[in-house]
Amino acid sequence: MATDQARSDASEADTYDRFEERVQRISNVGNAAGILGWDQEVMMPDEGTPARAQQLSTLSSISHELLTADETGELLAELEGGETTASSREASGETASGDLESDQAAVVREIRRRYDRETSVPQELVEEISATSSNAHPKWKQAKEEDDFEHFAPTLEKLVDLKREYANHIDPDADPYAVLFADYEPYIDLETAERVLERLRENLVPLIDAVQDSDADLTTDAFAGAFDDDDQEALARDVLDSLGYDWGRGRLDTAPHPFSSGTQFDARVTTRFEEDDLLGSITSTIHEFGHANYTQGLPDDGYGTPLGEARDLSVHESQSRLWENHVGRSRPFWEHFLPIARERFPELEDVTPEEAYEAANQVHDDNLIRVEADELTYHLHIVIRFEIERDLIRGDLEVSEVPEVWNDKYEEYLGVRPETDAEGCLQDIHWSHGDFGYFSTYSLGSVLAAQLYAAAEDDCGDFDDGIRRGEFDELNGWLRENIHRHGKRYVTPDLIERATGEGLTADHFLAYVESKYGELYDLEDY
Amino acid sequence: MATDQARSDASEADTYDRFEERVQRISNVGNAAGILGWDQEVMMPDEGTPARAQQLSTLSSISHELLTADETGELLAELEGGETTASSREASGETASGDLESDQAAVVREIRRRYDRETSVPQELVEEISATSSNAHPKWKQAKEEDDFEHFAPTLEKLVDLKREYANHIDPDADPYAVLFADYEPYIDLETAERVLERLRENLVPLIDAVQDSDADLTTDAFAGAFDDDDQEALARDVLDSLGYDWGRGRLDTAPHPFSSGTQFDARVTTRFEEDDLLGSITSTIHEFGHANYTQGLPDDGYGTPLGEARDLSVHESQSRLWENHVGRSRPFWEHFLPIARERFPELEDVTPEEAYEAANQVHDDNLIRVEADELTYHLHIVIRFEIERDLIRGDLEVSEVPEVWNDKYEEYLGVRPETDAEGCLQDIHWSHGDFGYFSTYSLGSVLAAQLYAAAEDDCGDFDDGIRRGEFDELNGWLRENIHRHGKRYVTPDLIERATGEGLTADHFLAYVESKYGELYDLEDY
Repeated sequence: MATDQARSDASEADTYDRFEERVQRISNVGNAAGILGWDQEVMMPDEGTPARAQQLSTLSSISHELLTADETGELLAELEGGETTASSREASGETASGDLESDQAAVVREIRRRYDRETSVPQELVEEISATSSNAHPKWKQAKEEDDFEHFAPTLEKLVDLKREYANHIDPDADPYAVLFADYEPYIDLETAERVLERLRENLVPLIDAVQDSDADLTTDAFAGAFDDDDQEALARDVLDSLGYDWGRGRLDTAPHPFSSGTQFDARVTTRFEEDDLLGSITSTIHEFGHANYTQGLPDDGYGTPLGEARDLSVHESQSRLWENHVGRSRPFWEHFLPIARERFPELEDVTPEEAYEAANQVHDDNLIRVEADELTYHLHIVIRFEIERDLIRGDLEVSEVPEVWNDKYEEYLGVRPETDAEGCLQDIHWSHGDFGYFSTYSLGSVLAAQLYAAAEDDCGDFDDGIRRGEFDELNGWLRENIHRHGKRYVTPDLIERATGEGLTADHFLAYVESKYGELYDLEDY
Repeated sequence: MATDQARSDASEADTYDRFEERVQRISNVGNAAGILGWDQEVMMPDEGTPARAQQLSTLSSISHELLTADETGELLAELEGGETTASSREASGETASGDLESDQAAVVREIRRRYDRETSVPQELVEEISATSSNAHPKWKQAKEEDDFEHFAPTLEKLVDLKREYANHIDPDADPYAVLFADYEPYIDLETAERVLERLRENLVPLIDAVQDSDADLTTDAFAGAFDDDDQEALARDVLDSLGYDWGRGRLDTAPHPFSSGTQFDARVTTRFEEDDLLGSITSTIHEFGHANYTQGLPDDGYGTPLGEARDLSVHESQSRLWENHVGRSRPFWEHFLPIARERFPELEDVTPEEAYEAANQVHDDNLIRVEADELTYHLHIVIRFEIERDLIRGDLEVSEVPEVWNDKYEEYLGVRPETDAEGCLQDIHWSHGDFGYFSTYSLGSVLAAQLYAAAEDDCGDFDDGIRRGEFDELNGWLRENIHRHGKRYVTPDLIERATGEGLTADHFLAYVESKYGELYDLEDY
């Protein structure tokens, strides 16, 4: 005879099953859109756009409707106990779903968050933002080509207004920039991000100054020359083979702007080849390997729910940067990889691992362009964008002031002043997409990469010898165990704390760059 | 001041808009699934299957739910005038939607048909058929590998029963085989199909007998040799270039079982290369060009509704077979194309166009395998399958009798008797998918191809000179004008009648093969 408790458990299990089926459906629609997006960048013929745009728009609407349907809200409320509303829950700091298994509670938590956000914003506003950014993109492109900020300014103003309105719908009492930031990084406080970025600025400005003053003469031409595309592709496959990419669950193609996408069953990498930039193709391939390797490490049985999905942008970026920088820009890596590269490119015969290492770690102190920046100056490019977009969204800065402020900050932080807006505040695509709050996740990713790498070495010992022998299993095993297999089970601060024993901190990143560049540039105080 | 009529027109326009939006949504979901299907065959890594199966199943459920939703039925009823039900309409032979523009009426007609069929069949039965065929596929594969019909027989029995039940839900009073046939060919009567197939059997059996008795000695080794894959691919691109494939709206890849898929904006071709079968790769590429060229010719502004979709399987197959056989297996084509092929394969230097023509048109009179059959014997392979599956579904034949009946028919119609079931009744995949009623559309396609080609030559004059010069625009223009641009505007008999001035008939096909093979094999009575 069933007890009341057993009956109630059975009914809850049934509710959870219905909820999970709904979540899986939403996830499958999103993953289908992911394949269409990959195809669009990599395979689709030029004139396929009109049909593809409609297909993607339909999938996006369906996903939105499934998520924001009354039934989703009812299932969430039932699973959470039914008595509390989202806002009373937030006010009390209560964690939802006390009676559920912890994995189920994590799924409920993630979907609740998306549900609350998507149901707060009127669909007309979402569509207006989408339409405005579609129009903004060509305006931005033309403005950049013609170095004419005025051409882009009115659209940028409109996007800032719309995104402020969007943030206001989600939480009228919160700092709108914090609300937008949470679209990309839901569980890291904006204060934490600001604190980290400020430490980067405070410490990197003097470090870069010291590098600029250094007399050290690093090898810069180790990879000079013209390198055949097909051989570069073969070498990119060598890179992926060497790092342990699972080809049964992925593939490599080329795309104008390299990216990775997919699921644990099918995590694809793209890269690009430029005749005169072999090093760039190698490091870009390692970077995308880091993303895809994270995806391949997500648990199979979590497919279709947040348990099988990657934690957000900063954690994803930590994986790409850990492999790109801590592995791919290290001395032992070049001791391992240079002989492989020489098989494809005999012209590298006279290059030494030390020369390759130096070439991969030059600091370009007069560079104005973020995507061409090195490991040090990169973060000042980010700090500048972060400060400007934060002030824009908060209403502390006018769009018309952006070019001047941008150039002033470049002069102050990096010691270089852009002569045009094209190589100044018009260089990035993000704002034309309405993406305010995205940039900082790049730096948070680097910071977290250093923190994870340090924790992994604490646990496993120094990885240098393994890397020198081309053995990456121990490092990757640590990442699988501490990051990948958890999917979205833990909120980001918990994930970081469990993996490293401490909260997100810039300490390890600063120690890493100070030691590395202090030695490379022979700096006295580092 | 709006009149009542104007108000009623406005409301109808509004209803149609809502209906069209729904139809477009269903179409976009289907086209997204099409991309996922293409990717699965062409790009997906081996282990991607579990996720892909779930994505496709989700899209299929969503599409089914959108189509069979009450709102679809209500919109259809409103647009049709609201008074009549589907069955009373059918009984009275009335065409729906008298007040709509004819294009809109066509969209309503096509969706009504799908709606009626999909809402008649209980979802559990659809799922049971789907699950049973998923299980049937490996059983069929194993049975074929081990030449063990008994291993497949129980599943085949179950599939026959389920599909009979399925047909019974759609129309309990109709011949169940006719109902199944209409899944693939909705507007051609089964009686018409039967009449055509019977004429093929009656006329091809003696023609093939005559060929078998002929002393003619056709060149068979014109394409003997080993041909490099990459060069074959380059030649496949030459084929597509030469025929006028629009690369801005398509691409060529390889797949184990060549197919075409996509929309008018993005109609892709796949082919395959075997070292010892250059001719097979060329003819297969031309065949797939025919399919993709039809898709590329569908009207852009019809995208998302049946007006922008291809008429059904027989018309699609008519396009592939017209290009493959009437163009690609003609003398003037080889006069045009052999010099192009020689550029890729200098070893063809001594082959003459006449030899290539003969090699492309041999009749293999001892062949047991449908997919390896020539233009003549092919249709007897189809007739045999058609007769057997029709009798199975009607209950006039037991599954256990299939092997014996199959072999007897091969002996009777083709003069060869399979020694094993593997090269007999287990050779095709179709029945394991639950596809009963599909096979005949291949032959109907050939028959229609000949009818269209004859009508096009009636209108434009003989195409031989143009083909010899590599000019295909006039032929393709005729197909665009008479077939492609109409999408599903007309039901199939109307489309055929408008294009050729007569109903579907085997006359032209029989005249074509009798003349062609009579000459090739030097047959007295032909």
